[in-house]
Amino acid sequence: MSSVTTRPTTEDDITAAVIDRLQGTPDPRTKEIMTSLVKHLHAFVKDVQLTEAEWFEGIKFLTDTGHMCTGMRQEFILLSDTLGVSMVVDLISHRKPAGATESTVFGPFYREGSQPRANGENMATADPNGTPCVIAGRVLDTAGKPIAGALLDVWQANSEGFYDAQLPTHDQLQMRGQYHSDNDGRFVILTTRPVAYPIPTDGPVGRMLKATNRHAMRPAHVHFKVSADGYEPVTTHIFDGGDAQLKKGDTVFGVKDSLITEFTEHPAGDTAAMKGAKVNGPFVTADFDFVLKPAK
Amino acid sequence: MSSVTTRPTTEDDITAAVIDRLQGTPDPRTKEIMTSLVKHLHAFVKDVQLTEAEWFEGIKFLTDTGHMCTGMRQEFILLSDTLGVSMVVDLISHRKPAGATESTVFGPFYREGSQPRANGENMATADPNGTPCVIAGRVLDTAGKPIAGALLDVWQANSEGFYDAQLPTHDQLQMRGQYHSDNDGRFVILTTRPVAYPIPTDGPVGRMLKATNRHAMRPAHVHFKVSADGYEPVTTHIFDGGDAQLKKGDTVFGVKDSLITEFTEHPAGDTAAMKGAKVNGPFVTADFDFVLKPAK
Repeated sequence: MSSVTTRPTTEDDITAAVIDRLQGTPDPRTKEIMTSLVKHLHAFVKDVQLTEAEWFEGIKFLTDTGHMCTGMRQEFILLSDTLGVSMVVDLISHRKPAGATESTVFGPFYREGSQPRANGENMATADPNGTPCVIAGRVLDTAGKPIAGALLDVWQANSEGFYDAQLPTHDQLQMRGQYHSDNDGRFVILTTRPVAYPIPTDGPVGRMLKATNRHAMRPAHVHFKVSADGYEPVTTHIFDGGDAQLKKGDTVFGVKDSLITEFTEHPAGDTAAMKGAKVNGPFVTADFDFVLKPAK
Repeated sequence: MSSVTTRPTTEDDITAAVIDRLQGTPDPRTKEIMTSLVKHLHAFVKDVQLTEAEWFEGIKFLTDTGHMCTGMRQEFILLSDTLGVSMVVDLISHRKPAGATESTVFGPFYREGSQPRANGENMATADPNGTPCVIAGRVLDTAGKPIAGALLDVWQANSEGFYDAQLPTHDQLQMRGQYHSDNDGRFVILTTRPVAYPIPTDGPVGRMLKATNRHAMRPAHVHFKVSADGYEPVTTHIFDGGDAQLKKGDTVFGVKDSLITEFTEHPAGDTAAMKGAKVNGPFVTADFDFVLKPAK
């Protein structure tokens, strides 16, 4: 039977046909994003001359990744992180004025509703074998003025390298806390010293890392989301400058030099270094000021 | 604290760092695919200057798509189909010698283990209100020689436009059959006339089509997977040349001119046109020969 209309017959015709089909998209930004996505996705398939078997492997990989996602584990974020996509988005989104604290990846382990805590309170009671760690500093604006009442939403892995969601007790929120800066912008967090750890490798992202012969390690860090009225919030980490993994690289490419800070060792009883937190035995301290820029 | 090693500080540095991290991939093809994927994925993000909020919408979209996938519904295939990716893969993979039957999209509704059926047997007993339809023809090689014992795995939507997986009785395999060509390469399928139908729009793909103001329709077609020992199998459709939707377009870009065939109407009792199938009332017939090329 003869043709009833002109139909795409080559792979380039298909790309043109799909982009043409997007012309009626009402929202201009959606149209821009979808058009670019189709263009780049098709270019990838043509570039590598993807076979049907490889395409189907890709479908299965994405399906497995979706099935791995729960309220406590976000495998697509982990995939985005390990492919460096999250850091590209981060670098595009956060062109900070000099002096403002730089951001880094959000990661897959943030959980809503963690506990409000007083300054000096221990957020690591579930991790009694870790090295106690006092993280203290101020929240400031870009002019150096203290910001009172800023919220510091803090989370980290325990001293064995596991987040609460990875433990048998995953229903409980652990190693997390919501602290607030005082009238001088000061905060004092008591936790345990973070350690380098592998991201979870029991899912599709682990298979990808294995297939590409990549390590799964992240250097020791503590996660922060710092926010205050009238300022742009920042999602970031502080990294332990003494961690050997820093030189070996971060599987999610999240390290920025400005986020590395020294963790200083103290003997038991060094009350001055405790800054009001109650610490038993030897401990470490890290000083870090968060600088927020005004909201647009 | 000062830098301990050179770290990426721009979005282009990140792309280079990720590609560098893939250098140890043992399998060259995996390395090629992953490198190209990272390059194109990053290029997309930079091209549209994707914001964090948009990135997170994307993460949620992919997660929802994964959660929609079951043994009976493959939302990622549907996404690949509606973005034209499946047809690009198809056109790259199947550069057929002239005369061989062209392939088209596999679609999300194939199911394993459908019933073996004798020539002339009705695969549409679950669709008593549809117009009976006899699809007959031969399986041939590219030299025109009949292929005996070829397997024709056939599936389609019912006359209301639903596949078995979309019905309350989704546990049952319906509107499917495995036919074999006889010694002359001939096959006779009894089914109901296919109709144009919308792909399922109750998932993320439906949201994408709505956001881009696209129709969800596919022109009337019957799915075939035709295979025989010593030949390359072909996954394809035959389209009803009389369907008005052909002119309005296919939401998955799957139509090829060579796959359009005439469906001819016959009055009740036209036994010659039935080709051995037992048909009550008026019916239609479609003649289509499948031509397979030798396996490599």
